[in-house]
Amino acid sequence: MENKPSLSIVKIGGNVIDNEQLLSEFLTDFSELEGYKILVHGGGKKASEIAEKLGLKPSFSNGRRITDKAMLDITVMTYSGLLNKQIVAKLQQLGTNSIGFSGADGNLIQSEKRKNTEIDFGYVGDVISVNNKLISALLLQDCIPVFSAITHDGKGQLLNTNADTIATEIAISLSKEYDVELIYCFEKKGVLLDSENEDSVIEVLDFEKYQILKSDQTIHSGMLPKLENCFKSLNNGVDTIVIGNQKVLKNKATATQIKL
Amino acid sequence: MENKPSLSIVKIGGNVIDNEQLLSEFLTDFSELEGYKILVHGGGKKASEIAEKLGLKPSFSNGRRITDKAMLDITVMTYSGLLNKQIVAKLQQLGTNSIGFSGADGNLIQSEKRKNTEIDFGYVGDVISVNNKLISALLLQDCIPVFSAITHDGKGQLLNTNADTIATEIAISLSKEYDVELIYCFEKKGVLLDSENEDSVIEVLDFEKYQILKSDQTIHSGMLPKLENCFKSLNNGVDTIVIGNQKVLKNKATATQIKL
Repeated sequence: MENKPSLSIVKIGGNVIDNEQLLSEFLTDFSELEGYKILVHGGGKKASEIAEKLGLKPSFSNGRRITDKAMLDITVMTYSGLLNKQIVAKLQQLGTNSIGFSGADGNLIQSEKRKNTEIDFGYVGDVISVNNKLISALLLQDCIPVFSAITHDGKGQLLNTNADTIATEIAISLSKEYDVELIYCFEKKGVLLDSENEDSVIEVLDFEKYQILKSDQTIHSGMLPKLENCFKSLNNGVDTIVIGNQKVLKNKATATQIKL
Repeated sequence: MENKPSLSIVKIGGNVIDNEQLLSEFLTDFSELEGYKILVHGGGKKASEIAEKLGLKPSFSNGRRITDKAMLDITVMTYSGLLNKQIVAKLQQLGTNSIGFSGADGNLIQSEKRKNTEIDFGYVGDVISVNNKLISALLLQDCIPVFSAITHDGKGQLLNTNADTIATEIAISLSKEYDVELIYCFEKKGVLLDSENEDSVIEVLDFEKYQILKSDQTIHSGMLPKLENCFKSLNNGVDTIVIGNQKVLKNKATATQIKL
């Protein structure tokens, strides 16, 4: 078997980004992380806040955002603009040479508008291709790509894409060339047996256990698409997946490891 | 004398960006432009519009924006987010492989917060360095950089920087390695003798003529900093400067050429 270089793909969620202290802790650890690395961030909470200030009411269905034209503009502004550039500026301060991207930049992530589902998600894109070549060229030049959750269809249309999904799709695509570790960083210590109890972290969650915990509704709502993405990744070439809080990069032992 | 490659640096203003038809005409011509090229865009009009919707009142002094914390966030969202990504997505559609940047990305444009002037401009940055190396690497790989008017201070702070100034500073910095043509594209056919008469374009404006037209107030307000930037560029290595409307890339003859 060939020996692939290691690559860490780290996704941070809105609750970490929104908290200046947590974000700072996380970015310090991220910049100290050795080896090739990529950051993917969400920001739905901030986008909802801005939408509300503008008098728009964000709507969700099964934890997924419905994106009309006005909401698309707000997600582009918030994800690819405000949050992405704030993160990049902070990484530069920490001496980590990062570049922030949407999927349109360098045609890095192309998607197609989601069609023919029971729900009309609006301007939401499902990823169809990832530009491994450009990402690898950047990594080789010690540039750390920071992806916001916006893609494009190649026909001039920007599309909103779930940040977990972007992390998943980049991880799967790059697993052809790298040993990929995918790390999800959110506000909890890991996947919890009891969502009210921070100490009920499941150390190792395999597909069988997941199926049981899903059917008895121990695992529910927003955690389901996240874990579906995890198993999809593991089934498609990604080596390791860890889910934890802003300390996950330093303390993997206390987080949840996802296995097949 | 050494033979430098040619580079076109094109700046488009808010009035062109805001008009879908003008922007489309311009981007089509831009993508057909041969040789190395860079796009720089403003977007103050859109930022003011969003600020107003959010209940903030934009304030100006001598045509320059005063940027408080809230306004900085809006400029970052609007310039580096919404407008930058819309332009990049449209260029991708036209087959031009572009990447959108703020100055924080790849430490492309570092600035320092403007200090000790008669006016406190707030979060406004004066450019101190341009990363020629990364820009050249991108150009060599047929990536077209698209710059939004946001820079950073290297200490984690994003700063708002006038787009004309960004075009000027990039042009001056890259003139060490390229024969630089700087093209300003705005809503008028060129520099006008009579701002009410679109046909009063000054064909060639040299520094002597500029001094006269400035002292008799034929040229005034927003045109003054633009032209100061032009003469600064010409005095610092930039070869050619043209000011015209969205058709300028195809019709340089009807625009204004700035000369020393």
